[in-house]
Amino acid sequence: MSNQLPFGFTFAGVACGLKKTGALDLALIVSDRPCAAAATFTRNRFPAAPVLYDRALLAENPAGLRAVAINAGIANACTGEAGLADAAAMAAAVEATLSLPPRSCAVMSTGVIGPRLPLAKIKDGLNQATPALSPEGWEAASRAIMTTDTRPKTAFRQVDGCGIWGMAKGAGMIHPNMATMLSVIVTDAAVAPVVLADALRAAVEVSFNAISVDGDTSTNDTVLVLANGASETRFLRENGFLAALTDLCTDLAQQIVRDGEGATKFITVRVTGAASDADARLAAKAVANSPLVKTAFYGGDANWGRILAAVGYSGAEVDPARTDLWIVAGTLGGVGAGLAPAQGDRKGSPLQLVQGGQPPAYSEATASAIFAASEITVTVALGLGAGQAIVWTCDLSHEYVDINGHYRT
Amino acid sequence: MSNQLPFGFTFAGVACGLKKTGALDLALIVSDRPCAAAATFTRNRFPAAPVLYDRALLAENPAGLRAVAINAGIANACTGEAGLADAAAMAAAVEATLSLPPRSCAVMSTGVIGPRLPLAKIKDGLNQATPALSPEGWEAASRAIMTTDTRPKTAFRQVDGCGIWGMAKGAGMIHPNMATMLSVIVTDAAVAPVVLADALRAAVEVSFNAISVDGDTSTNDTVLVLANGASETRFLRENGFLAALTDLCTDLAQQIVRDGEGATKFITVRVTGAASDADARLAAKAVANSPLVKTAFYGGDANWGRILAAVGYSGAEVDPARTDLWIVAGTLGGVGAGLAPAQGDRKGSPLQLVQGGQPPAYSEATASAIFAASEITVTVALGLGAGQAIVWTCDLSHEYVDINGHYRT
Repeated sequence: MSNQLPFGFTFAGVACGLKKTGALDLALIVSDRPCAAAATFTRNRFPAAPVLYDRALLAENPAGLRAVAINAGIANACTGEAGLADAAAMAAAVEATLSLPPRSCAVMSTGVIGPRLPLAKIKDGLNQATPALSPEGWEAASRAIMTTDTRPKTAFRQVDGCGIWGMAKGAGMIHPNMATMLSVIVTDAAVAPVVLADALRAAVEVSFNAISVDGDTSTNDTVLVLANGASETRFLRENGFLAALTDLCTDLAQQIVRDGEGATKFITVRVTGAASDADARLAAKAVANSPLVKTAFYGGDANWGRILAAVGYSGAEVDPARTDLWIVAGTLGGVGAGLAPAQGDRKGSPLQLVQGGQPPAYSEATASAIFAASEITVTVALGLGAGQAIVWTCDLSHEYVDINGHYRT
Repeated sequence: MSNQLPFGFTFAGVACGLKKTGALDLALIVSDRPCAAAATFTRNRFPAAPVLYDRALLAENPAGLRAVAINAGIANACTGEAGLADAAAMAAAVEATLSLPPRSCAVMSTGVIGPRLPLAKIKDGLNQATPALSPEGWEAASRAIMTTDTRPKTAFRQVDGCGIWGMAKGAGMIHPNMATMLSVIVTDAAVAPVVLADALRAAVEVSFNAISVDGDTSTNDTVLVLANGASETRFLRENGFLAALTDLCTDLAQQIVRDGEGATKFITVRVTGAASDADARLAAKAVANSPLVKTAFYGGDANWGRILAAVGYSGAEVDPARTDLWIVAGTLGGVGAGLAPAQGDRKGSPLQLVQGGQPPAYSEATASAIFAASEITVTVALGLGAGQAIVWTCDLSHEYVDINGHYRT
């Protein structure tokens, strides 16, 4: 993280006994003044109680949020009406402890599906966290939201003299029972709620929604951004803010994939020339989610037939005779780099494996060397139109099976 | 297989050098008289050359087929116009070798995507196979179509004095590069092509299309049925034929799942009470394809939260407050048993893990005992309508990663 700290925000991370290991499991984020807020939530049809609570809260009070409390260990999902009351009680406890107005605190939970939240432990945790609140509490908070994560995930961007700070954990698509992709982003920029909501939606679409590890979507996924306007900045370019937010979300999203369960490789799947952007996304997601493709990457096997087969069943419009496929070691520079050929992070030259739906003569040794790299970019060029998309994913390893075969026990 | 052999059909399986191991790799199936034929093909947008060839052949000549030749080792997929010419040359070679009319032989291929078919080897193989043709050649033929299969898959059913014999290999959704689910079914019943096509479509929908191992669909998947009318039967009940064909296809489909790469468990996913059959299928497929659910089965972890989460993102209509989930050791008796509670093969009592979207009090020990069984049935009851579906799948194990991480190399 940057040495610079956000104006007007304080943070704490404490252990209140939800994790059996005794690790930090309750994070508290507080603003000294009301924040504009926006959020995106899981589309899972079994949304967890905190998702339902926050969705209603943001609709009612999009410009007056003061705090977020996040617990790890128990997801408060599949807990019915009682769970919804628990989420409301957790928020009310924060508001009471910190003397905040009612309906000014959002809540998030991640962990095991099914059990009720132990409210007494959480209240004890809030009493611990309150005196610990400080700008430097950022790191402890980012650790307290971890579950199967092996490291905290944070990022910082500057724009027009304001700062944007983000923390994230897990990934609904990576992390199973201790599920959930959660991210909290705070900025001391002054941004109207409607502008914030538009920017977050656009940024999430090309960052958190463009990662995939196993195609599973959690019941608790939430990205929340709070803008308190505490910086001195008088003039904020909306485009500049959107670009910085998008860049920060992309950074956090890629960190999630790199820390994916059992991940040994970072894969960029790029589809260009599709009939539409939606088609490009379909094709890229099919490749990124295919267990056969993912195990081939794990094994370092330049098995392009599996990639074409995944594109072929994705539902995207395809003309085999126009389909090309390229691979290169390295990673696209980020959304800022657009869909131009990978540069900067690119290692060595791209290699064409498919031309017009068929393999040209290529060196198997060169292909194997690229597939042996720890970061690989695959480009499928469909030759049909201007549609394009990028999806980031990781490989499927023995360790993934270890972690998920015996997670809960 | 039954001791009874089909009237009018002969079979052979030989080794012509397509498999590096020297194992049988060319199967020949011949009828002594013209057959009505019907087939279902992969929906992959990169259909292999033999798929394109057979599709055109069956449209042109649905009542005059005499033979099928199947090679294993090379898929003849992603081979363009040259590959299509190779498929036609393979069919023409069979017709020439056996003195059959032109356009009377279908072809299938399974194996590595990309390389051209070595026609000289295949012609040598046909010269070997022709003198070996006999009713008893059935078993060798069923072995010659195997790739990563650990055993041949065959089934037999009787109806109205006729027989239906089926052989199958692999599964597009299980078997990657040496991809492809292939099945050939022969019957000595007399069935009109249009009746045969309707029956096959209906049977495949609830059998081969209801299995899933990793959600991948091959470029070569084909199910072909040939009816030569050589039996003495004068009166065939269409419903009886459909039921027997469906039962046979279900048997073969389940054999494919049981022999799935790395499979250690056989899982029946049953969804009832959906808003529609299509919704039930969506939900059942999402559960069956979820790597998190499949690794939980592998680990014997009664992790019902992952099952609900998969239903939640499947796209099916869901009301959490009406959703129930049951598990029981054992397997549904087959399509014949319909969607009634598992009987016959059921081991012990069903255990309810979710009631109205929440876990009731249940014994974790009982749940673990059920998840430790080698055959498990999961029932998700959505409480919304009359829609229902069954999907069969297997677990996701270390061995799956082994096989697919290093398959081609």
